[in-house]
Amino acid sequence: MAKVTGLEGVVAGETDIGLVDGEKGFLVYRGYWAKELAVSKCYEEVAFLLWNGRLPSPKELALLKQEMAESRALPEYLRGMIDLLPASVPLMLVLQSAVAALGVPENASWPPTLKQAVRLTAILPVIIAYRYRRLQGLPVVEPLADLGHAANYLYMLTGKVPENAHVQALSAYLILCMEHGMNASTFAGRVVLSTESDMCAAVCGSIGAMKGPLHGGAPSEVISMLEEIGTKENAEPWIRKVLDHKGKIMGFGHRIYKTKDPRAEALQIATQEMIGKDESFDLAIHVEHTAIRLLEEYKPGRRLFTNVEFYAAAILRALELDPEIFTPTFTSGRIVGWTSHILEQAGSNRIFRPQSVYTGPMPATGI
Amino acid sequence: MAKVTGLEGVVAGETDIGLVDGEKGFLVYRGYWAKELAVSKCYEEVAFLLWNGRLPSPKELALLKQEMAESRALPEYLRGMIDLLPASVPLMLVLQSAVAALGVPENASWPPTLKQAVRLTAILPVIIAYRYRRLQGLPVVEPLADLGHAANYLYMLTGKVPENAHVQALSAYLILCMEHGMNASTFAGRVVLSTESDMCAAVCGSIGAMKGPLHGGAPSEVISMLEEIGTKENAEPWIRKVLDHKGKIMGFGHRIYKTKDPRAEALQIATQEMIGKDESFDLAIHVEHTAIRLLEEYKPGRRLFTNVEFYAAAILRALELDPEIFTPTFTSGRIVGWTSHILEQAGSNRIFRPQSVYTGPMPATGI
Repeated sequence: MAKVTGLEGVVAGETDIGLVDGEKGFLVYRGYWAKELAVSKCYEEVAFLLWNGRLPSPKELALLKQEMAESRALPEYLRGMIDLLPASVPLMLVLQSAVAALGVPENASWPPTLKQAVRLTAILPVIIAYRYRRLQGLPVVEPLADLGHAANYLYMLTGKVPENAHVQALSAYLILCMEHGMNASTFAGRVVLSTESDMCAAVCGSIGAMKGPLHGGAPSEVISMLEEIGTKENAEPWIRKVLDHKGKIMGFGHRIYKTKDPRAEALQIATQEMIGKDESFDLAIHVEHTAIRLLEEYKPGRRLFTNVEFYAAAILRALELDPEIFTPTFTSGRIVGWTSHILEQAGSNRIFRPQSVYTGPMPATGI
Repeated sequence: MAKVTGLEGVVAGETDIGLVDGEKGFLVYRGYWAKELAVSKCYEEVAFLLWNGRLPSPKELALLKQEMAESRALPEYLRGMIDLLPASVPLMLVLQSAVAALGVPENASWPPTLKQAVRLTAILPVIIAYRYRRLQGLPVVEPLADLGHAANYLYMLTGKVPENAHVQALSAYLILCMEHGMNASTFAGRVVLSTESDMCAAVCGSIGAMKGPLHGGAPSEVISMLEEIGTKENAEPWIRKVLDHKGKIMGFGHRIYKTKDPRAEALQIATQEMIGKDESFDLAIHVEHTAIRLLEEYKPGRRLFTNVEFYAAAILRALELDPEIFTPTFTSGRIVGWTSHILEQAGSNRIFRPQSVYTGPMPATGI
C-alpha cells in the first residue's frame, strides 16, 4: 500500500504569525504570549494583531469593532440556501457550503484582502448560530451591534445577553484557538490559496480539514467523560477504575506540549470568576484536581498536565453550548489564523506542488 | 517577508495512481500509458481503472455506467440552493458550495468509499450544466441515461445529442485531465482528508485549489490567441509580430514536459475526425503548424512542442463551450484523480502537519 509521509518534520515555509514550541510550552502570536493576550485583550484586538502584526490603537480597535459588527448581516440568499440543506448535512459542511456561497467578487478576488478576512471572520458565527437555531426549531436571534464578537456569538446562540464571566471565558477560549502554526487546516488553506485562488475558496478548504476528528481541538471526548462522571463523589472511583484498567483520562497531556499547555493555563485564569457559580464548571474543576492527584499516584513522575481540551470542555459545557457546535466554535476562533496565513501566503506566494513517488506498475509495452 | 517553499522537490508521499515524468514525456495511469487510454477507452473505463487499479470487465463496466447514470439525479434542494446564489459567484465556488451541500452522511462518512467517489464524479457535470444553463436563461436539460458520461455532459450543456467526433474529442480530453501526480488540487484534497474528514469536504478543498489560475490546465489564454488571430491568413503575420517583439506564443512548451506532451499527442489522434469539418478547429490546426514552423525559425533548436492547453483550447472552442466552463470541465475530468487519491490517502492515512519556521518577533517579557 502506498505510504504517505504526512510531511512530519518538513518545513513548509516561514511565518511571522505564530510560534508553537511544545518543549518550552511557548505559544507566541506576533511577538506576544498568547496566554497573556487571552486574559487581557478582546477577540477583535487579537484578531487585529494577527492580521496586522501589531496591536490596534484605541481608534483602530473601535473602527474594527464597527466594521465587524456591520459585517454580521447575513444575506437573504444565504439564509434561504442554508434552510434548503438537509438537516443531516454536518454543520462543518454547511459552513463550507455557505463560505463558498459568499464568494461574490468583493469577497473572492485576487489578491485576498484584509477586508475580506474581517468580513468572513465576522459573519462565520452568524452562520453557525443561524443554522443551529433553525435546526433546533428556535427563532433566529439577529446579531446585536453593540456586543463584541464573543458576546454577540453567545447572544445569537442563546437569545440572552450573556453574563460577563461567560463572555470572558469564551473570549479567552476563542483567542487561544486562533493560531497554532502550520496545522492541517491552516496548511490546507495555504495550499488552496497558493494557486492564486481566493479567500473564500481557501477558508473553505481549511474548514474541510478542521472537520476531521484527527485535527483535534474539539473537546467532545472530555465532555463525554465529564458527563459519565456526573457528580463530584463519582470522580475518584471513576478515574481509579479507568487507571486500574490502564485506560486514558481525556484532557491530560498533549502531543505537542511536553510541559504546561499555555492555553490551559490561560483558561484557568480566564475562568476564575466562574468558580463557585456554576455546578457543571465546579464539577470539571473537581475532576481536574482529582485526576492530577491520581495520575501522580498511578504514574509518578510522568507529570501529565491539564490540556486545552479539558478547559474548553469545562467552559463550553458551563456555557451550555451543544456539542454539535464545538468544532464550529473552534472554527470561529481559528478563522483568524487561517485568514492571517492566507494573507501572508498571498504576500510571497509560491504554488504548493510537492513530489510523489510512483509505486504502481509500469506499462508492459513501450510508449 | 516570510518566505514559502511551495514544497518543491519535497516528496509528500507514495502513490500507486499516476506517474508524471516530464523528461521522458511519460504520463502513466496505474500501469497504462494515459495517451493510449485516452484514444481507446471511454471515461467510465479509465475512471474504473484509476479507482480500482485495473481495467473493468465488460460486466463491471456496464454496472459502473449504470451506477453513474443513476447518480446523475440532481436533488431538488440542490437546484434551489444553486438558483439562490448570486450570478456573480464564480462557477468554481458554486461547485464548492454544491459539493459541500451534497454532504449528507451517505456521501460524507469516514472512511470515504468508492461509491461516494462514483456518485460525486457522476453528479459534478450535472451541477455544472445546470448552473450554466440557468445563468444563460436557457431551459435545463435533464441527463439522458443511455448516454455515456462525456456524451451526456455535452448533451446537458447544449441540449443536442452530440456527434461522435465531438464526444471522442471531449472524452479524450477529460481522460487526460484525470490525473497528474501530486498537483496542488490533488494535494489539497489529500491534506483535507488526512484529518479523517470526508470525501465531500476534501473534493471541496481540491476544487478551491483548482480555481486559481496558477493551477494551469485552463486553456483560456490559447483561446484568446486563437480569437485574436481569427483567420488562417492572419496566423503568420500575427505570430511573426509576437515573436519579433519577443512575446510568448501560448500553447507551446510546458513546465514539466521537456519533450512531447503526451496529452497533446493523444488529443491530436483523438481529433482526427474533426479535421476538415469544423472551421474553428481547422484554424487551430493551421495556427499550430504555423507556430511550430515559425518557432523553429525564430528559436532554432529550442524544440517547443504543442502542449495540452493548445489542443484543449482547439477542442473546447470547436465544441462551442463557453470559456466560463473550461475550468469546471477540467474539474469534471480531474475529479477522478482527486477521488482516487482521497481513497488512497484514507487507505494508509497520516495527518499532514508540516513544520513552519517562525520569523516574527519574540515577546519582550518572560513567560
